[in-house]
Amino acid sequence: MSMKKHYQRPLDFKTGRIDMNHGAGGRASAQLISELFAPAFDNPFLRQGNDGAQLPAPPAGHALVMATDAHVISPLFFPGGDIGCLSVHGTVNDVAMLGAVPLYLSASFIIEEGFALADLRRIVESMAAAAREAGVPIVTGDTKVVEQGKGDGVFISTTGVGALPPGRQIGGALARAGDVVLVSGSIGDHGVAVLSQRESLAFETAIESDTAALHTLVAALLAAVPEGSVRTLRDPTRGGLATTLNEIAAQSGVGVLLDEAAIPMKPQVAAACELLGLDALYIANEGKLIAIVAPEVAEAALAALRAHPLGRDAACIGVVQADEHQFVQMKTALGGMRVVDWLAGEPLPRIC
Amino acid sequence: MSMKKHYQRPLDFKTGRIDMNHGAGGRASAQLISELFAPAFDNPFLRQGNDGAQLPAPPAGHALVMATDAHVISPLFFPGGDIGCLSVHGTVNDVAMLGAVPLYLSASFIIEEGFALADLRRIVESMAAAAREAGVPIVTGDTKVVEQGKGDGVFISTTGVGALPPGRQIGGALARAGDVVLVSGSIGDHGVAVLSQRESLAFETAIESDTAALHTLVAALLAAVPEGSVRTLRDPTRGGLATTLNEIAAQSGVGVLLDEAAIPMKPQVAAACELLGLDALYIANEGKLIAIVAPEVAEAALAALRAHPLGRDAACIGVVQADEHQFVQMKTALGGMRVVDWLAGEPLPRIC
Repeated sequence: MSMKKHYQRPLDFKTGRIDMNHGAGGRASAQLISELFAPAFDNPFLRQGNDGAQLPAPPAGHALVMATDAHVISPLFFPGGDIGCLSVHGTVNDVAMLGAVPLYLSASFIIEEGFALADLRRIVESMAAAAREAGVPIVTGDTKVVEQGKGDGVFISTTGVGALPPGRQIGGALARAGDVVLVSGSIGDHGVAVLSQRESLAFETAIESDTAALHTLVAALLAAVPEGSVRTLRDPTRGGLATTLNEIAAQSGVGVLLDEAAIPMKPQVAAACELLGLDALYIANEGKLIAIVAPEVAEAALAALRAHPLGRDAACIGVVQADEHQFVQMKTALGGMRVVDWLAGEPLPRIC
Repeated sequence: MSMKKHYQRPLDFKTGRIDMNHGAGGRASAQLISELFAPAFDNPFLRQGNDGAQLPAPPAGHALVMATDAHVISPLFFPGGDIGCLSVHGTVNDVAMLGAVPLYLSASFIIEEGFALADLRRIVESMAAAAREAGVPIVTGDTKVVEQGKGDGVFISTTGVGALPPGRQIGGALARAGDVVLVSGSIGDHGVAVLSQRESLAFETAIESDTAALHTLVAALLAAVPEGSVRTLRDPTRGGLATTLNEIAAQSGVGVLLDEAAIPMKPQVAAACELLGLDALYIANEGKLIAIVAPEVAEAALAALRAHPLGRDAACIGVVQADEHQFVQMKTALGGMRVVDWLAGEPLPRIC
């Protein structure tokens, strides 16, 4: 829609702020779309300008995959990223974890009255860059504004649609005893980066979020091993590695045995966790995946992950085993055994 | 996922409240899913239990349609509906307005700490009933919790995916001079119902929201006339009939001439608007559509709308005309002419 002629003045991205009019559906809403969202996200689908987008369907024989995520992270900007790129990565990853190729994203914004247009633009541009880099266009969207004190800056919900090749089955219920558990890199980076920003902690070595789109890493992995040998893929976000493995164990009706010494962790993350009294196993990641694979392809799978820039530090961290209690257990670095239970105690709110 | 064994006690839907743990991704999050969302929305896709759903693709030759809406309506409960059913209807309608058959919905919830579980259950059950009634399953979702004072009860973002039959083209840019403008029923019901609830106004006759899923009405209309003769469909939500027609006029590069006397409006809505100093042309609707159709099918289209329970009061309210200024004008009931401009002045925030 070209409605510039209607506006007296362009949006003031230096000192301007969101007001309730930007969410009322009238001229101010249209201006926000035409001066911020439309140019940043620009693509032929969004340009259709309707309340939805008309899109080419997946190739014949492919199934559809659909995933959604609400993003309420606080603070909005953190070392290594912001809510904008995070909201693209999170949903691209959820689609990719089912083995699908991400095709399209939708985005809905809930903005608090008074939010600085400069910050909104920074977030939208980060989101646009992430979508461009991932090759997944944002094809439709919605914007609402809530009164000051009824929101918190901006919340972003993204939904992704992808195409699943014929015959591919990857999911949390498909792990079986004997399978091997791989992780694509060091754990805890995202959560520790956000917490350190939130608590205004300055560590000697900066810890950055690992936020990244993992669909090309998934594609590289799947290309390297026979169809069916990758049972489960999941990104260990909220609740971290421990929670994700407990979910998979429950879904598949199996146990997992981890080897603590094999789990990759950056020394500065380990140090920060010790300082903060946190267990890195429960800390969110936004650019890592867990792959549960058949034992005979474990080596090839690990090599494929390591050959990709986002999987350089991939490691084999455990095995799936028969266990009617569906426990996740861990051989500790000191040689003992420990049950890695569902998250209990202090939560880490608003980490994604 | 069946993880009931992990919980000490079931959720207390009488006096319980959402706490930050329900959004932390651990045991409390899993309990909220397994005791509230999963049973309410139950369907085979959601039951897959992954971070996304694997779904049958649209039939061969069909295009995909994708639409998204953030819902921040206040109050959450209003005469004739609540945020739950509204969030289903709104997105089903956006998909249907492109001429597509809605297939799947995703839902993401941003809940404020302290929100009553009883209210959440009421909303989720209303949403589930609306999805069931519409025949469009909620296949995947996400839940986040924000601290008290950082949200407002619950916000719900829904995304819909639909299948567009081969060759069908319906959109806001396709109206042309000579086309006829139809509306499927009385305008202003939703906005006035919400405002009267918000302002605690008691009118002599209760005014209820018109919130409804319109995809079967669209199907009936499209079945009654030749492909291509319905140019544009749009639901006049935020900003009402006036804003929606201005959007279409801008997209299509045409003008619109309305006949005020022909626009259906309930007497109690007209009275309430007079009392509140509002113009019903700018008030949101949630169960009405505007159809712009070729003149030769106008009669058949109107008859098809009127034959459907949701289009009983459909009317022909104007015509599309050539106009380089893209004005929406209206012949008033008193015989004068008035420009129906983009919304200016007082907004009506959080109406959907």
